[in-house]
Amino acid sequence: MSELLENLQWRYATKKMDPTKPVSQEKVDYILEAIRLSASSSGLQPYEVIVVTNPDIRKQIVPHAWNQAQITDGSHLLVFAAWDDYTAERINYMFDLVNEKRGFKNEGWENYRQMLLSTYPERDADTNFEHAARQAYIGLGSALIAAAEMKVDSTPMEGFVPEEVDKILNLKERGLKSVLLLPLGYRADSGDWLVDLQKVRRETDEFITVID
Amino acid sequence: MSELLENLQWRYATKKMDPTKPVSQEKVDYILEAIRLSASSSGLQPYEVIVVTNPDIRKQIVPHAWNQAQITDGSHLLVFAAWDDYTAERINYMFDLVNEKRGFKNEGWENYRQMLLSTYPERDADTNFEHAARQAYIGLGSALIAAAEMKVDSTPMEGFVPEEVDKILNLKERGLKSVLLLPLGYRADSGDWLVDLQKVRRETDEFITVID
Repeated sequence: MSELLENLQWRYATKKMDPTKPVSQEKVDYILEAIRLSASSSGLQPYEVIVVTNPDIRKQIVPHAWNQAQITDGSHLLVFAAWDDYTAERINYMFDLVNEKRGFKNEGWENYRQMLLSTYPERDADTNFEHAARQAYIGLGSALIAAAEMKVDSTPMEGFVPEEVDKILNLKERGLKSVLLLPLGYRADSGDWLVDLQKVRRETDEFITVID
Repeated sequence: MSELLENLQWRYATKKMDPTKPVSQEKVDYILEAIRLSASSSGLQPYEVIVVTNPDIRKQIVPHAWNQAQITDGSHLLVFAAWDDYTAERINYMFDLVNEKRGFKNEGWENYRQMLLSTYPERDADTNFEHAARQAYIGLGSALIAAAEMKVDSTPMEGFVPEEVDKILNLKERGLKSVLLLPLGYRADSGDWLVDLQKVRRETDEFITVID
């Protein structure tokens, strides 16, 4: 089996992390870089990642996340926070950055910018936020693979109260809404009911349909 | 640089595919397996992947997807289709499968099943569909990495009319709604305006915030 498939098999939503084993900054940076390089719709990267190592801040988050101890037992908490809306400013920032980096303007690209400017900001904020939130999940897909490659454990979490996490991290002021938590750490030697259980996925013919 | 980061750098949303170069079944299967093994909320895998090779069916989809030629120029079109709702039947199917594969019932797992059964089916279908759709994006994240590793080109697409694609593929009858198209193929030797342009991402300090 390839390393990628092995890594996908290896990883699991770690239930108990060892608080004495921090993840090295090098490995965290690797995971963050995989997220940063991930695809997103129109390349807008409509989300940010907040890396919380501060123990007090992480402790504040725990009661709003079903008291899941991985948040404080892990060494790093990644918070994926999506744009609360698409604004002309945000769209222009990214298109300008692309032009600056590439060193020229492309007519098709500029037409595409205008198309986005004439549609996204007109839509309601909820629609735009949902669209932005989806893109963060592509980054999560990359993060889980990057972490597994480094043999770093992680626990993707949607079970938390976003409004409370947003308050603790002052995300509203930045036009962001938390959508995913991802504690990083190392599985504890004991106390994790899930660690030795088989990963179960639907059989291929229950998941894939071929139309040929 | 690691292979993963190199692959993420290598890939791009291919604009022009070579219709004479089909992707081998082995590589397609590899990409599909990476999707199947991907994480999803509560492990429910609330989506399916339709693999369309049939040229007529793909041709029917093109006008509903901004006439993007990769759909027919590539050899395989992956359609990610999310559950239109979470039903008790769907939730029970997955929990039963887990018990069957693992060969025993776990009390915590059964309590978790009851928690989901008492919440998800009560929510409105739109909320559930949105939640399911997000999970498909984790699979997309894996697919893009798996394809890049195989040096297979791909083009993630949200720009299409889901209702029309659903009709063509009879997805409604199966309780599915299309959320993503991903043509697979190989970049053409010429005619792709994007192929040689630099990939641009926000700088790390514009994308990552550290709270320590």
